[in-house]
Amino acid sequence: MARPYNFSPGPATLPEPVLAQAAAAEMLDWHDATGRPSGMGVMEMSHRGREFGEIFARTEARLRELLAVPAEFKILFMQGGALAENAIVPLNLSQGGVTDHVITGAWSLRTHQEALRYSEARVVASNVAASSANHTTMPAPASRQLSDDASYVHVCSNETIHGVELHELPDLRSLGSDAPLVIDGSSHIASRAIVDWSRLGLAYAGAQKNIGPAGLTLAFVREDLLGRALRICPVAFNYAVVASHGSMYNTPPTYAIYIAGLVFEWIAAQGGVAAIEQRNIAKAALLYGAIDGSGGFYVDRVAPDCRSRMNVPFFLRDDALGAPFLEAATARGLLQLEGHKSVGGLRASLYNAMPLEGVQALVSCMREFAARHG
Amino acid sequence: MARPYNFSPGPATLPEPVLAQAAAAEMLDWHDATGRPSGMGVMEMSHRGREFGEIFARTEARLRELLAVPAEFKILFMQGGALAENAIVPLNLSQGGVTDHVITGAWSLRTHQEALRYSEARVVASNVAASSANHTTMPAPASRQLSDDASYVHVCSNETIHGVELHELPDLRSLGSDAPLVIDGSSHIASRAIVDWSRLGLAYAGAQKNIGPAGLTLAFVREDLLGRALRICPVAFNYAVVASHGSMYNTPPTYAIYIAGLVFEWIAAQGGVAAIEQRNIAKAALLYGAIDGSGGFYVDRVAPDCRSRMNVPFFLRDDALGAPFLEAATARGLLQLEGHKSVGGLRASLYNAMPLEGVQALVSCMREFAARHG
Repeated sequence: MARPYNFSPGPATLPEPVLAQAAAAEMLDWHDATGRPSGMGVMEMSHRGREFGEIFARTEARLRELLAVPAEFKILFMQGGALAENAIVPLNLSQGGVTDHVITGAWSLRTHQEALRYSEARVVASNVAASSANHTTMPAPASRQLSDDASYVHVCSNETIHGVELHELPDLRSLGSDAPLVIDGSSHIASRAIVDWSRLGLAYAGAQKNIGPAGLTLAFVREDLLGRALRICPVAFNYAVVASHGSMYNTPPTYAIYIAGLVFEWIAAQGGVAAIEQRNIAKAALLYGAIDGSGGFYVDRVAPDCRSRMNVPFFLRDDALGAPFLEAATARGLLQLEGHKSVGGLRASLYNAMPLEGVQALVSCMREFAARHG
Repeated sequence: MARPYNFSPGPATLPEPVLAQAAAAEMLDWHDATGRPSGMGVMEMSHRGREFGEIFARTEARLRELLAVPAEFKILFMQGGALAENAIVPLNLSQGGVTDHVITGAWSLRTHQEALRYSEARVVASNVAASSANHTTMPAPASRQLSDDASYVHVCSNETIHGVELHELPDLRSLGSDAPLVIDGSSHIASRAIVDWSRLGLAYAGAQKNIGPAGLTLAFVREDLLGRALRICPVAFNYAVVASHGSMYNTPPTYAIYIAGLVFEWIAAQGGVAAIEQRNIAKAALLYGAIDGSGGFYVDRVAPDCRSRMNVPFFLRDDALGAPFLEAATARGLLQLEGHKSVGGLRASLYNAMPLEGVQALVSCMREFAARHG
């Protein structure tokens, strides 16, 4: 049987060649760039040894190149996912003062809740709305809403559960604010062409969508923001400490970093992030087109200008057809299409590693199902 | 060439059959207990799906069985390693009051330092000493030293860097204390027969020694200690929240948990922890015997009654022979024997997955080297 298509929101499908390479000789005996065997699998290597040092350096350099990360940003390899960063960010940046938050869905709501432990966390814009219109638009912060004294402004640039995506980073300076912009980019990192780093102070992302295995978190921190941590910040999560130890103050999740490195090589081999983005645009257009062209059999509630390319929550006009749809999809090797329990309906995640063929198969399944039940 | 023996202090050698199983069909297509293919590798599975649910439940049950963990202890699968737990423990248990600390080496020193952020952290016993006697004994806390009002007493039961091991847990009740005992067992968990859980309130361990890949932390928490967290405890690291969500409040490090599960199966197949302990005793006796019987060519500074079975730091009488020794060892497939930079000399870590044959090969290399250079 061909490999099924896995539409999981994360942990999520990975490129087949990445898994094949990890599974082959490298699991038991990793070879360095010159082909010299190490006699160890990557999981078994000391993080301070020459071999892992080579893996780490190559991974970081490739990531910096793929996302064109400027030299003034440190790349930190951390643990705990975006949920832990919800605390780690204010512990490092808030200085106990005001933080501004844009609410766009379930993840930014949690970010705001957690920031209240460490700062005066204000909501400066929100897309909360009644019933089915909840979290279906992308609110833009206006200058009059931003706090004069905010230590940062937080935005979740892609909401995995509600499927809204920010297609351009806000320019806080043009809104009269000097506050650094902080982005939770977990579910669309590396899916789009060059990020506008000049607008950013900090970006973070859990790895388990577009990067690799769960348990690795990436943080991109502008150097001038280091060294502001509260005394109550755990040392293992102090950005300045992590940065000055090259992400090895505590033992990093070495195997997850290795897999991330293989994914970065795969992205490069696909033509880089710009080429990946073109494919992501095509994949999303195909699926949204099928939903919008279904005569109302399938329904998308998100405003067209902020629909996510990565996470597509949608509904059947007749909710009772949900279970039969999932059954039909699974029978065709289309996996993990259940909607999030807080939203219901269906959800297809179209991360980088989802091939166009997977979306074609989904769309064809949707059309047949609609023809049978419409 | 035969697989080399890897004496790394962690991340460390893993059982070859574990890596082989993970590398084979399972990397791309995990099969459930009935042999049904899932169509996904473990890294790609939603942590909330049926398949990973099966892996998780089996892993936890096997661990509970192997270590005879009583029902009143919750087993939490977390992230950040022991260094993060140094903050997470006082954030969860100290209530901002007094915590008692036994200092036995580099790791317990750091634990005490970090606890000072959140509690009045006192040193109640210590093996700090001048020069080469530093951290070479195991101090026992006496009742007169324990604080009346401590929220817990912390001990590192095996010091990975200094090689001292606690061979019996202290019985705080017999010392007149009701405080829960908290153990950092990172580097000897699952290496010894049944832990005396009745003396324990909390044990935690980074996985990267005896359990599996770096990036997974295990915490065993007695239920009555849940719910005491400070308001500044990040929700992702709040034991009560992690426990009530079955370790899935944030996305857990799923692949590391899967590998840990394979390691637990391997331990069970070896006859369980009691059988593993007998092998560990034999391995340690062989190496310590070779050091002590070398006529002073090799030197062990740790007091015999508290020598670690897992981590054996030792020295050459002539320090200048260190580099040639490491070269000779590497040439014979004996890897990662450098001592920690803060201690110098050599160090052999003899975790569960190190076979007796590896220690025999090391001892034979040591004897030959001594004969040549003695």
